[in-house]
Amino acid sequence: MDVRLIGMMPEPEKLPALAAKLTHSKTAPKDLEDSSPEELRAILTHVLNLGHTSVIEHTCFTFVISDVSRSLTHQLVRHRIASYAQQSQRYVNLHEPCYVVPPTINRNESLKKAYEKTMQTIWNEYNKLIEMEIPAEDARYVLPNATCTNIIVTMNARSLLNFFELRCCLHAQWEIRMLANKMLNLVKKKASILFKDAGPSCKTKGYCPEQKKDCKWYPK
Amino acid sequence: MDVRLIGMMPEPEKLPALAAKLTHSKTAPKDLEDSSPEELRAILTHVLNLGHTSVIEHTCFTFVISDVSRSLTHQLVRHRIASYAQQSQRYVNLHEPCYVVPPTINRNESLKKAYEKTMQTIWNEYNKLIEMEIPAEDARYVLPNATCTNIIVTMNARSLLNFFELRCCLHAQWEIRMLANKMLNLVKKKASILFKDAGPSCKTKGYCPEQKKDCKWYPK
Amino acid sequence: MDVRLIGMMPEPEKLPALAAKLTHSKTAPKDLEDSSPEELRAILTHVLNLGHTSVIEHTCFTFVISDVSRSLTHQLVRHRIASYAQQSQRYVNLHEPCYVVPPTINRNESLKKAYEKTMQTIWNEYNKLIEMEIPAEDARYVLPNATCTNIIVTMNARSLLNFFELRCCLHAQWEIRMLANKMLNLVKKKASILFKDAGPSCKTKGYCPEQKKDCKWYPK
Amino acid sequence: MDVRLIGMMPEPEKLPALAAKLTHSKTAPKDLEDSSPEELRAILTHVLNLGHTSVIEHTCFTFVISDVSRSLTHQLVRHRIASYAQQSQRYVNLHEPCYVVPPTINRNESLKKAYEKTMQTIWNEYNKLIEMEIPAEDARYVLPNATCTNIIVTMNARSLLNFFELRCCLHAQWEIRMLANKMLNLVKKKASILFKDAGPSCKTKGYCPEQKKDCKWYPK
Repeated sequence: MDVRLIGMMPEPEKLPALAAKLTHSKTAPKDLEDSSPEELRAILTHVLNLGHTSVIEHTCFTFVISDVSRSLTHQLVRHRIASYAQQSQRYVNLHEPCYVVPPTINRNESLKKAYEKTMQTIWNEYNKLIEMEIPAEDARYVLPNATCTNIIVTMNARSLLNFFELRCCLHAQWEIRMLANKMLNLVKKKASILFKDAGPSCKTKGYCPEQKKDCKWYPK
Repeated sequence: MDVRLIGMMPEPEKLPALAAKLTHSKTAPKDLEDSSPEELRAILTHVLNLGHTSVIEHTCFTFVISDVSRSLTHQLVRHRIASYAQQSQRYVNLHEPCYVVPPTINRNESLKKAYEKTMQTIWNEYNKLIEMEIPAEDARYVLPNATCTNIIVTMNARSLLNFFELRCCLHAQWEIRMLANKMLNLVKKKASILFKDAGPSCKTKGYCPEQKKDCKWYPK
Repeated sequence: MDVRLIGMMPEPEKLPALAAKLTHSKTAPKDLEDSSPEELRAILTHVLNLGHTSVIEHTCFTFVISDVSRSLTHQLVRHRIASYAQQSQRYVNLHEPCYVVPPTINRNESLKKAYEKTMQTIWNEYNKLIEMEIPAEDARYVLPNATCTNIIVTMNARSLLNFFELRCCLHAQWEIRMLANKMLNLVKKKASILFKDAGPSCKTKGYCPEQKKDCKWYPK
Repeated sequence: MDVRLIGMMPEPEKLPALAAKLTHSKTAPKDLEDSSPEELRAILTHVLNLGHTSVIEHTCFTFVISDVSRSLTHQLVRHRIASYAQQSQRYVNLHEPCYVVPPTINRNESLKKAYEKTMQTIWNEYNKLIEMEIPAEDARYVLPNATCTNIIVTMNARSLLNFFELRCCLHAQWEIRMLANKMLNLVKKKASILFKDAGPSCKTKGYCPEQKKDCKWYPK
C-alpha cells in the first residue's frame, strides 16, 4: 500500500477559518483576507470545539493510493461525499500478477504458499483468456478481490473526519483501516487544527456507537 | 441476474406532479391533493418536456438485485445519488461456488470449461482458508470479480434517468447494461411519464456525448 | 404554519429492515420479502441500536409545508441530502399580504401594530411595482423575509434524523424548530422504530456538541 | 455585487489531468506526477471532448461573494453539490440599510425613489425592533429579499459546469446570471481547458433544453 497526498490548498486551514469568520462578522469580504493568522487559528479552533464542521468543507485533500485491493476500493467508494478516479480493469491489461496478501495468511508459511499458487493459477487463466481475444473487461471476471488497483480520491475535510471516524475504528476491516490511518497521518501534519480530534469516536468522544464492550479500545 | 422492484410509492408519479404544480401556483397546499389525475399528468408531462427534472426527485424506486458480479456492483455504487445495502463478504460465508460467466466465455465450450475449473480451484482455496480459521473477511481476497452478490438499491427518478443515460449506452459494460435495461423495463411499466424518454442520449436526444461515430446507434 | 405528510411508503420500516437483513444473510432476495414482520422489526431495532443508520436511507418521507417564512426555507434548503420544490416568487404573484409574525413581536401589542403597518407599506410598494409593470421577479425584492411561502420536501429517514438532531435543538431558530418538531411528530406516528431516538443529541445521546452549559436541556 | 476567487489549487488543471491519466494507464502512481504539462493538457482536453467530466471533480474553486441579495443566495444554495458559509442574520446586526436595486427599478427615477423610501421605512422598523430588544433573529423578519448578504461558496469544476449551464442561460434570473457570468470570467482565466465549453447549452451544445424558441439565443 502506497498513499500519497498529491493535492491540497497551500494553506489548508485558511479557507475554513475565513468561512467561519464571515458567518459571524460584518467584515467586508474584500478585507477578510487581511485577517491575521493568529486570529484565523483562534476562530477555527473555536468553531470546531463547538462541533460546527460545515466550514471545513471549504478545503479538500487529494490522495493517490496504490497497491491496495479491489476489496478495499469497493468499500472506499461507498463514501459518497468524495470524488474518485480508479484504474479501469476494462481498459488496462493486468498481465502481471499483482495482489494483496492479508496478514493472517502472510504469517503462515504454508497458507501463504497455497495462496500464491492460487494467484498464479488465476493469472494464468486471465492471460490465457486475453490471448484467446477475450476482452480485458471480461477476462477480469477471474481476477480476485486481492488484485492491486490504483485510485485517486478527493475529499473535503468534513467528509474526511467522517471517514476517519468510521474507518480508523478497530472494527473496520484491516486494509481500509490501514489506509485511513495513513491518510490521517498525512493530513494531520499539514492541518493540525482540522484533524486534531480526528479518529474513531471512542478516542475522540469517549463513546462507542456500536456498543462493542469487548473491544480493547472501549471507553472505560 | 435477478432484478425485482420491491419498493415505490403507490402512485409514483403523483408527488412529482404535485411538486411541479406547487412551484407555479397559489393553490393552498391543503388543496393540492385534490388536483385531478388528468391535470397532474398534464403538468408532469409539461415540465419534463422543458427538461425540468428536479421535481421527479420526489419519487424513489427500490430494487433488489441478485446473482450479479462484484464487478457490476463496484461500478454500480459509483452512482452517488443513491442508497445501497450490499451482502457483506466480511460477515457472510460463501462456501458454495456462485459466479457470473461473461457471454464471450460462455459461448466457447473449451474456454467455459477452463473458466469453471479455475472457479473451482478458487473456491477450494477459499474453503480451505475458512477451514484453517482464516476469517471470511480475509479468505474472500481469493474470490473473483465474478462472485455473485446481492444488493438493494434505492434511487430517485432523476438519478435513475442519469443512470439509464449512462448505463443503457451500447458502450457501457455488458453486465451493468443488462441490469440497467431490466431496471428500465420495470419502472417504465409503473411510471410511463417519468421514464418515457429514459435511455442513452443517442436515443433520447439524438446526440452522442462520446462522439463514437463507429457505434451502430450513432445518430445519423 | 401547516405541515402535512403527503408521501411515504405504505410500510415505511419494511425496506430498511429488508436492507439490514440482506447485508448479513444468505437468504435469496426472492425470499427476502417473506420475512415475518416480527423478524423485520427485531432486525431493524438491532441495527439502529448499533448506530448503523445507512439502511434507513431506503425509506423517504415527503412533506408539504405552508405558511412558513422565507427565513425558514432559506435555512431548510441548506440541508443538501433532500429534495425541494418551492413556490416561485418569480412566477407567482403575491398580491395579498401574507407573512409570519415572530412570537417576540406578536406578544407586544404596540410592536405588533408597527410590524403590521410596515408589512402593509411593503405590500403597497410591491403591488405598485407590479402595476407599473415591473416583473414579479424584481418587485419581490421589497418583500420581507417574513413572506409566507410553500415548499415540498422529501428526505430519507437518515437525513431526517440529522435534521431533527440539529433543528429540534433548543438553540435552533424558533421557526425551523417548530417545523422540525411538527415533522418529527408526524413521522413518529408512522415509523416508531426509525424515529424512536430522534431529536437533539442532548436528549438522545446525553451529549451537547455545542457545550451550551447554560441551556436548560444541558445534560446533568 | 463583488465576486472574488479566493481559493483554488495552484495548478487547477493538474489533478483532473492526473486523474484522467490514472484511469487508463499502468503508470505507477508515484511516477504520475512526472507527466509533462503538454501530455497532461492533451489528456484533459481529450477526456473533456468525450464528455467525461467526472475527473474534473478533483479540483475546487472558492469564491467570496458580497453585496448580493438574499433572493440570489436563496437560489444559489439550492445547488447541493457545493459548500456554503453565509453571513448570519441571526448573529450579525444589520443596522445600516444595504440592499440591491433591480435594474428595472433603478432606471426609472420615480420608481427608484419610492423603492428607496420603502427600504428606509423597513430599516427604521428593523432598528426600532432591535432597540426594543427584539433579538436580531426576529427583527430580521422585516428585512427585504433585497438585503445585502455575503457568502463563501466552494464548488468543484464539474458542479461549476452545471451551475454555468443553468445560470448563464438568458432565462435565469438577472442577478444570479450576473453572478454566474462573473464567476465564469474568473475561472476561465485560471483554467482555460476546464471551462472552455462552459455556459448555457444553447451556446455549448447548440441545444435549448427548455425549447424557448422566442429566445434571442435560440440555436438556428
